[in-house]
Amino acid sequence: MAPVAIETPVHTNGTNGASSDSVKKVQQETEHVHDIDPSKLTLHLKSELTPVPAPETLTFGTVHTDHMLVLNYSPELGWSAPSIEPYGPMQVDPMASCIQYATNIFEGMKAYMGADGRPRLFRPDLNMARMKRSADRLALPPFDEQALLKLIKTLVMVEKRWIPTAPGCSLYIRPTMFGTRCGFGVTPSTSATLLVILSPSGPYFPGPVRPISLYAESRVRRAWPGGTGGHKLALNYAPTLRPTHDASLQGYNQILWLFGDDDHLGEVGQMNAFVVLRREDGSLDVITPPLDGTILPGVTRQSVLDLTRAHMLNAPIPGLPAELTLHVQERHMPIAELVEHSEAGRLAEVFGVGTAAVLVPINRIGYGEEGKEIAEETGASGFGPVAKAVREEIMAIQEARRTHVWSVPCDE
Amino acid sequence: MAPVAIETPVHTNGTNGASSDSVKKVQQETEHVHDIDPSKLTLHLKSELTPVPAPETLTFGTVHTDHMLVLNYSPELGWSAPSIEPYGPMQVDPMASCIQYATNIFEGMKAYMGADGRPRLFRPDLNMARMKRSADRLALPPFDEQALLKLIKTLVMVEKRWIPTAPGCSLYIRPTMFGTRCGFGVTPSTSATLLVILSPSGPYFPGPVRPISLYAESRVRRAWPGGTGGHKLALNYAPTLRPTHDASLQGYNQILWLFGDDDHLGEVGQMNAFVVLRREDGSLDVITPPLDGTILPGVTRQSVLDLTRAHMLNAPIPGLPAELTLHVQERHMPIAELVEHSEAGRLAEVFGVGTAAVLVPINRIGYGEEGKEIAEETGASGFGPVAKAVREEIMAIQEARRTHVWSVPCDE
Repeated sequence: MAPVAIETPVHTNGTNGASSDSVKKVQQETEHVHDIDPSKLTLHLKSELTPVPAPETLTFGTVHTDHMLVLNYSPELGWSAPSIEPYGPMQVDPMASCIQYATNIFEGMKAYMGADGRPRLFRPDLNMARMKRSADRLALPPFDEQALLKLIKTLVMVEKRWIPTAPGCSLYIRPTMFGTRCGFGVTPSTSATLLVILSPSGPYFPGPVRPISLYAESRVRRAWPGGTGGHKLALNYAPTLRPTHDASLQGYNQILWLFGDDDHLGEVGQMNAFVVLRREDGSLDVITPPLDGTILPGVTRQSVLDLTRAHMLNAPIPGLPAELTLHVQERHMPIAELVEHSEAGRLAEVFGVGTAAVLVPINRIGYGEEGKEIAEETGASGFGPVAKAVREEIMAIQEARRTHVWSVPCDE
Repeated sequence: MAPVAIETPVHTNGTNGASSDSVKKVQQETEHVHDIDPSKLTLHLKSELTPVPAPETLTFGTVHTDHMLVLNYSPELGWSAPSIEPYGPMQVDPMASCIQYATNIFEGMKAYMGADGRPRLFRPDLNMARMKRSADRLALPPFDEQALLKLIKTLVMVEKRWIPTAPGCSLYIRPTMFGTRCGFGVTPSTSATLLVILSPSGPYFPGPVRPISLYAESRVRRAWPGGTGGHKLALNYAPTLRPTHDASLQGYNQILWLFGDDDHLGEVGQMNAFVVLRREDGSLDVITPPLDGTILPGVTRQSVLDLTRAHMLNAPIPGLPAELTLHVQERHMPIAELVEHSEAGRLAEVFGVGTAAVLVPINRIGYGEEGKEIAEETGASGFGPVAKAVREEIMAIQEARRTHVWSVPCDE
């Protein structure tokens, strides 16, 4: 069992903790406590290691490696010395904030064994910055992102033998922070635990990559302006389980989340959405919803935007004609507009992007209450030309088959 | 340490679990598994009991009793035999659904030592029905509410010595259910743990009851139509911590949550809101936001509505003139309308109601960006006449000083 610290109940003011005094006290305290210090890392490694599973047996996020990174935060001491220790269940108080009030955040990253033999991360600075924003949104303790990233790299190096090299496989990295303060008062969790779990994973959608279907959901809303949809919080996911389950009974793989009075496109399951439209002059519109607080600022989303914009500057995407014009736009698209484009024959591609699945084509979208559907020809490979080229390019960078600053080695 | 079951990772399909096959499988399975069976209860009691704290030291939700009720659900077996066992930390897998995806629900109830010497609950059927709806909303396992209620009554009887009898004190009851399925696929938690924790509690806001202040928040939204605000989910609480913290820095106790384009009133902190307006003919409007999915269907809210409506039929509320006309309404009230009533001298009372705090008067509401405030005279006692009479009546029923079907003995 992992020796995760258990906070003892605080027998003080049990109110909402909303008095200025208590807040000031917390702020003063955090100024004098320890931040994450990678130089204090201790390793408690297992003497008998688990055999690494055969790559063809890997699915997404079901297996963990031998060890995890553990850090605990207390208001008196700040972040504890980091520890890499055997993966195992942790002790949690039933009154802990993470159980009672969902003060839980996480990140999704992947390590790849680079073509150069070096384990590599993909744009990890974006994950660290986002995790820091998530912690702040739930009033969890702040932390030094560069220090955490350094520890993640060390953990990946320790668990290097777990990085699968088969196509579509990678070592999924799940940094997780959760509040451990005990008590039923609805007040910030002044103590927390930060874990980094590694999971050798196969494709998010098992089998060869093939298009998925969506149900456009307008009764249940995943997020809204002023809510938490723009942050990577555990609490954004639980409410999606029931509607996704219901959509699956109708034969759809995932939900296309719609927002607002005009039912504009949001996310696709747990992925960011992209729509490609054909113009009469042969150029293409590449459209994704804007970061208005309802959309997760995805690392893959940002990378697709960066690559397609660079295509129009000085870095054409391999696999796409250099002379092809892409009109890249972050804007709202009502579902009615998507239907209109489809009916007019302008809809070229729809796909979802995210760390777990990278890029998944979509060939069918159910909408409305009368079983209406947008059906899209996706060709023999299942991919449209933009989806195919962009996915290939991102994976080439991730796997260091192409040299790029986005691919960061873990061994330096 | 409490022997809470730990699910071992499921090494099967790690996708979003959204295939019809897996859903059907779960449905078929749940038809043949055990529901909660109170006749199978086992008691593992501590040999050395903790001394009960002095009532004057009690705050809200910081102390637990000696024991808790524990039930575990597995898709193969259904609900385990219930167990009352020593309170203590539980073992949780770091990949568990409750840590990663916030599949956590809870209820808030209270046990009172009745004037007749019998421990009593207040309208517990409403809590059980709401908890069942919460479980369904997060795709957690269903359960027999009457069976759970029977076990809660037994637990209260076992822990009877912990029920504080001092004014404003009670034994707070926290049923908690959380998903224990392991894996990073975003899929319903097919396994779960259900705990009932007891906490002898003093007033939610410490000290003598006094009015609190609110900041009317329109940038951050607690809930929205199509969201989860109408269910009692852990995930509704974490997003409120940061804004409440920020409001406290401006000198306000709690947030008045606003919704919609017209910024109409939602909840008050974690309570339901009530507004009382004076009419020229001396009658009063008693107004609370409607249950449109953004508002928790509070047990105290329902009780205030029931009592004020009964006042107009055949059961005048003691402490209010029988001839006083109350116009009871569940309707939206934009913050601008509230300001208008205040400026015109029509605003008689504003208060929040909930299980934890019962009823708390509000005497100051900050709104807008220029430090504007609604200030309300609340009289020497801090309570307006409706708030005072309704609170007294509810507490009289809760403490069985008045006989009422809402007050349910635990010993039958």
